[in-house]
Amino acid sequence: MKTPKISEAVVRRLPIYLRYLNVLHLQNVQTVSSSDLGQKLDLNPAQIRKDLAYFGEFGKKGIGYDVNYLIEKIRQILKLDQFIQVALVGAGNLGRALSNYNAFLKDNMKIVAVFDAMESKVGDKINNLTVQPMQEMKQTIKSMNIRIGIITVPASEAQHVADEFIQSGIEAILNFAPAIIKVPNEIRIHHADFTTELQSLAFYLD
Amino acid sequence: MKTPKISEAVVRRLPIYLRYLNVLHLQNVQTVSSSDLGQKLDLNPAQIRKDLAYFGEFGKKGIGYDVNYLIEKIRQILKLDQFIQVALVGAGNLGRALSNYNAFLKDNMKIVAVFDAMESKVGDKINNLTVQPMQEMKQTIKSMNIRIGIITVPASEAQHVADEFIQSGIEAILNFAPAIIKVPNEIRIHHADFTTELQSLAFYLD
Repeated sequence: MKTPKISEAVVRRLPIYLRYLNVLHLQNVQTVSSSDLGQKLDLNPAQIRKDLAYFGEFGKKGIGYDVNYLIEKIRQILKLDQFIQVALVGAGNLGRALSNYNAFLKDNMKIVAVFDAMESKVGDKINNLTVQPMQEMKQTIKSMNIRIGIITVPASEAQHVADEFIQSGIEAILNFAPAIIKVPNEIRIHHADFTTELQSLAFYLD
Repeated sequence: MKTPKISEAVVRRLPIYLRYLNVLHLQNVQTVSSSDLGQKLDLNPAQIRKDLAYFGEFGKKGIGYDVNYLIEKIRQILKLDQFIQVALVGAGNLGRALSNYNAFLKDNMKIVAVFDAMESKVGDKINNLTVQPMQEMKQTIKSMNIRIGIITVPASEAQHVADEFIQSGIEAILNFAPAIIKVPNEIRIHHADFTTELQSLAFYLD
């Protein structure tokens, strides 16, 4: 299901709703109102109702949203009901830190392979993963049907890694390198650049 | 200068413009057109012209934007012409990785202090920084006039660290913990959560 009308801003808020809904589910909470959600997530309740209305009418006036149904629906929209394997290139501090997040990811979305170009890192264990050489990347990605690639290499290597990912069949990239990377239109790339995060935060200082 | 009319989306794009403009500056390029910027950054040129028009008319038809002037103006808008000190709490893999980014940050914005609650980490060297105990945080932040705080602790500790940051006088927070954190209205908080990044990327898979 392709739903092209959903804006990127909404797509970025859905995982935040999902995280809190999962907390409510664990607490056996059955329903939640947009004002509860807004209060907890520091978002405008009208904005939340608008976001969730993209996916049809889930909320009932005076009762709120059914927590389990909303979880199921958001997971479906985000395609988290699929099994999604992730590869990571760059086994430095950042790569190791991200691999540790595996524990927080649901079973259906995991980092399943880590690669590094430095011989000294190949063979290292990161939790239950063994760092593989770059030469094995294409074959591993194809054989494991890995669809998302994470780049945690120095900026100077980032374009090269992105090119290799794409040649290997990766469909979406999450880039942590402070570099401008060009990809074909059909590849989705998100940049998680720490320096730009800090710089945009500085704007809000008085 | 507070410029509340600039949308968050624009504020997040400005550092990306700035990064490429700095590259052009190093290459002695004097002017750049919105279509060049658009091509390089994979953004719509009309969007770029609109973004930059927020700050007055910089572009000249047929010539483009003056690179140096645009750099100066964007740095001013993002307050990067100020001296901004940053503190980080959580000296794990992620904290260490971010401290290494200091080399990519300009001289006026640096991580100048790292804290950790674990005694075994206190005293560790990360580049030129020594990990300090949490008990020293308030005094260090006040005496060094640190304005931005970064959270790289486990989710269960994140709210506590945010509260201590705010009590110490921190004005803006960049949170990397996969946690929902409540802060007073006057504190700006950005979340850089790896799991939500990955989840929103999954949406764009076919």
